[in-house]
Amino acid sequence: MPYFDAASAAPLHPVARQALLAALDEGWADPARLYREGRQARLLLDAAREAAAEAVGCRADELVFTPSGTRAIHSAVSGAAAGRRRAGRRVVVSAVEHSAVLHAAEAVAGEGTVQVGVDRTGRVDPARFAAALTSGAGSGTRAGSGTGAGAGGGTALAALQSANHEVGTLQPVAEVADACRAAGVPLLVDAAQSLAWGPVEGAWSLLAASAHKWGGPPGVGLLAVRKGTRYAPQEPADERESGRSPGFQNLPAIVAAAASLRAVRAQAEAEAARLSALVDRIRARVPRLVPDVEVVGHDRLRLPHLVTFSCLYVDGEALLTGLDRAGFSVSSGSSCTSSTLTPSHVLKAMGVLSEGNVRVSLPAGTAEADVDRFLDALPGVVAEVRAHLDAPTTVGGKGVGPVEAGGDSGGDSGPGALPADEGLVVDSLGKRCPIPVIELARVIGDVPVGGLVTVLSDDEAARLDIPAWCEMRAQEYVGERPAERGTAYLVRRRG
Amino acid sequence: MPYFDAASAAPLHPVARQALLAALDEGWADPARLYREGRQARLLLDAAREAAAEAVGCRADELVFTPSGTRAIHSAVSGAAAGRRRAGRRVVVSAVEHSAVLHAAEAVAGEGTVQVGVDRTGRVDPARFAAALTSGAGSGTRAGSGTGAGAGGGTALAALQSANHEVGTLQPVAEVADACRAAGVPLLVDAAQSLAWGPVEGAWSLLAASAHKWGGPPGVGLLAVRKGTRYAPQEPADERESGRSPGFQNLPAIVAAAASLRAVRAQAEAEAARLSALVDRIRARVPRLVPDVEVVGHDRLRLPHLVTFSCLYVDGEALLTGLDRAGFSVSSGSSCTSSTLTPSHVLKAMGVLSEGNVRVSLPAGTAEADVDRFLDALPGVVAEVRAHLDAPTTVGGKGVGPVEAGGDSGGDSGPGALPADEGLVVDSLGKRCPIPVIELARVIGDVPVGGLVTVLSDDEAARLDIPAWCEMRAQEYVGERPAERGTAYLVRRRG
Repeated sequence: MPYFDAASAAPLHPVARQALLAALDEGWADPARLYREGRQARLLLDAAREAAAEAVGCRADELVFTPSGTRAIHSAVSGAAAGRRRAGRRVVVSAVEHSAVLHAAEAVAGEGTVQVGVDRTGRVDPARFAAALTSGAGSGTRAGSGTGAGAGGGTALAALQSANHEVGTLQPVAEVADACRAAGVPLLVDAAQSLAWGPVEGAWSLLAASAHKWGGPPGVGLLAVRKGTRYAPQEPADERESGRSPGFQNLPAIVAAAASLRAVRAQAEAEAARLSALVDRIRARVPRLVPDVEVVGHDRLRLPHLVTFSCLYVDGEALLTGLDRAGFSVSSGSSCTSSTLTPSHVLKAMGVLSEGNVRVSLPAGTAEADVDRFLDALPGVVAEVRAHLDAPTTVGGKGVGPVEAGGDSGGDSGPGALPADEGLVVDSLGKRCPIPVIELARVIGDVPVGGLVTVLSDDEAARLDIPAWCEMRAQEYVGERPAERGTAYLVRRRG
Repeated sequence: MPYFDAASAAPLHPVARQALLAALDEGWADPARLYREGRQARLLLDAAREAAAEAVGCRADELVFTPSGTRAIHSAVSGAAAGRRRAGRRVVVSAVEHSAVLHAAEAVAGEGTVQVGVDRTGRVDPARFAAALTSGAGSGTRAGSGTGAGAGGGTALAALQSANHEVGTLQPVAEVADACRAAGVPLLVDAAQSLAWGPVEGAWSLLAASAHKWGGPPGVGLLAVRKGTRYAPQEPADERESGRSPGFQNLPAIVAAAASLRAVRAQAEAEAARLSALVDRIRARVPRLVPDVEVVGHDRLRLPHLVTFSCLYVDGEALLTGLDRAGFSVSSGSSCTSSTLTPSHVLKAMGVLSEGNVRVSLPAGTAEADVDRFLDALPGVVAEVRAHLDAPTTVGGKGVGPVEAGGDSGGDSGPGALPADEGLVVDSLGKRCPIPVIELARVIGDVPVGGLVTVLSDDEAARLDIPAWCEMRAQEYVGERPAERGTAYLVRRRG
């Protein structure tokens, strides 16, 4: 049964399993103790640190093990920000960072968090990121906050992922690291998604990663702090791991994590080429096999094993359930698959469709035949969900291809610029994604070319999906304004 | 080769190993995902939570898994203190808590940390603990700080271990919990050392524990927060574990931890009786086999598997090395075995000898024959260390027996009460434990009965060990005063 959610967690690598079993026997004791079991544990810990540091590209004494990638990020953000408190309180991040980075930044900087926007492929512009380091000018994606100018002087820390976890887009880390160095700001790189494939290039200051993303066991994160980086741990004092990660080390898992990182790296080049070809196949075929699909993320500057697309008029949860029933395990950034009923902040920052979203991330060793079986099964599953929702059909089954990189989404038109006329009003209040978009699609043909449709919706996903639908269907998105209940979204028929 | 340091870490229980292996295959996926691997992981997680909650004696929705016992304590202290900020900032703890508790309290309360002293057995007095909740009157062990009166009003949180990790003494948790309830203060119980043996009785509000203490794998702690306890997590937002423990769950280890807790509990009563008899044997025989030994901790109100003693005129590190060479792995609270060269804060709070300290903690299943082999080997190893240090010998090999519970150690005599005369001066400056005490013992016969000896020392252990030596040798400890270098310790010869 093919599992295509490696970006969440990969099954344990055989090398990790073997190393874990050996270390459970030889490395259960406290490495701080002087007796033989302790000394043996210490040797295993030191060897694992050496191996992990080599894979990261840092010195062993710059690297500590944490209980998870999330905890590595939390420690990195709080420790680096505290070490730079005199410089200022602002933290500059990309708008598409993992929620662990965003929440950690929020915790230390609050209003002083500056989110730098991305283009439609999910990539930050290094020049724009560099500008935010000094001016605090963030993105349009976080309206009204994060201007940073009044948030306590300078920038304490910047954070940029090496590759996006939801759409696979690689970030220009080396260029941003140079800009950070020039500005005297340390850069934290969240390398969770890319470390299996290779070290992160460039003059970063801090790096965080997570073992269960590369086939290591859960319970192990990496935190590297390069020499010369100001760092003041914020957890209560603890002598383990250079005072940077409190608590008894999870040694068997650490040994397994280091061994599997070395093992996946040995195969990385060949496996990256093989999986990248399979991803290219998915990127090319899905829009041909399924109508009204948007493949998102960068088509070249991307992780080898990850591809994401969204399907118009599809309920993400129903799609996942259908794929699961067909034997495929995938993830989704659709609002209906999240506990908060909001669409993925990554898709939102990119300004792309969120409904019917599917992320496919192939574990190492994925068979070509399984990918083909997925491509065979997908059209039927999507059609079934659409039929169930009584979704509009596209004549001729013509979908839209991958969207080219463009500028940021969203216009600047405030409510004042909107026409007073509402045209045809669709009341979608109380209805969840993808219903508001389906109801819009159903009526657009009922107004004359140049005429308006207003969709009333209180579903958070509509804010993203109605403009995205307009982009896909070549209709004009006019703007939004508050309504008596929910929000009014205005669309003008183009053709 | 007998391993007698179960209180640090126990080898993996066979049930834990089996559960871990099964869960590595079935529980590696993200339990938050909707596909079958995720649902399977969720089932395992739910079952582990039910089992662990049953063993703790709480509801499953009151219990979360953390990456370690240390992290459970850190979260508990910061979360509970923040939840009670309006009541005050003071945190009341026993002086013999694990350093994780003391450092966490320090981090949230700073000067508002109140340490309640213990008697010579290491036990807190419930009435004294109760008084500290409202008055902030702590112990004599933390001179000059922790008066708490000016530290932000009332008491936010109290913390008391179920049993001490260094000397095994059980604490009166139920009585203290009642006092806390009466004062409206939540009580955190660090149950790390006792949870294998049974649930913690009494009306506690929060409880923390650590799986690798009961034969579970490292990487798993428990945090229970009873309903009705005000609690505000201080880590950055994360939706896992009810928002109380950020990061991807270490599910295979969690499953193994829960399974082994259930397994050790099934054997707990019988194994406690068996190990307790072995500990009684050690407690009775060591003072007869080895001269000048102080067995510390309570002789009845104690953990079944743990016993600690200190040997006069012995270098702790040399003793550990000698025992290791003889095949025995034990721990020590002596200053020379710590990275900071200070004696254990627990022994210090108890006012007992810290030099030549040995903690024996028997793992479940320890063979009687191994304990007897230890008792056979110990006298020779101690004698060898003493011979190497040219230590004084006791005529007839008569040691001192277990010390009865008494009042607190340390007199109130300030420098003003000390005699101006110094008597015979022993310059032990620059010499480490146990040399100052050895030099004192060598000269005490040189002064007349009623005469004074002054030991000059800059070793932190002398402050504890010179008074302890006086107590053991029935000499009078007169007091200390600052010297030009280090401290002058005054002793009067009694007989």
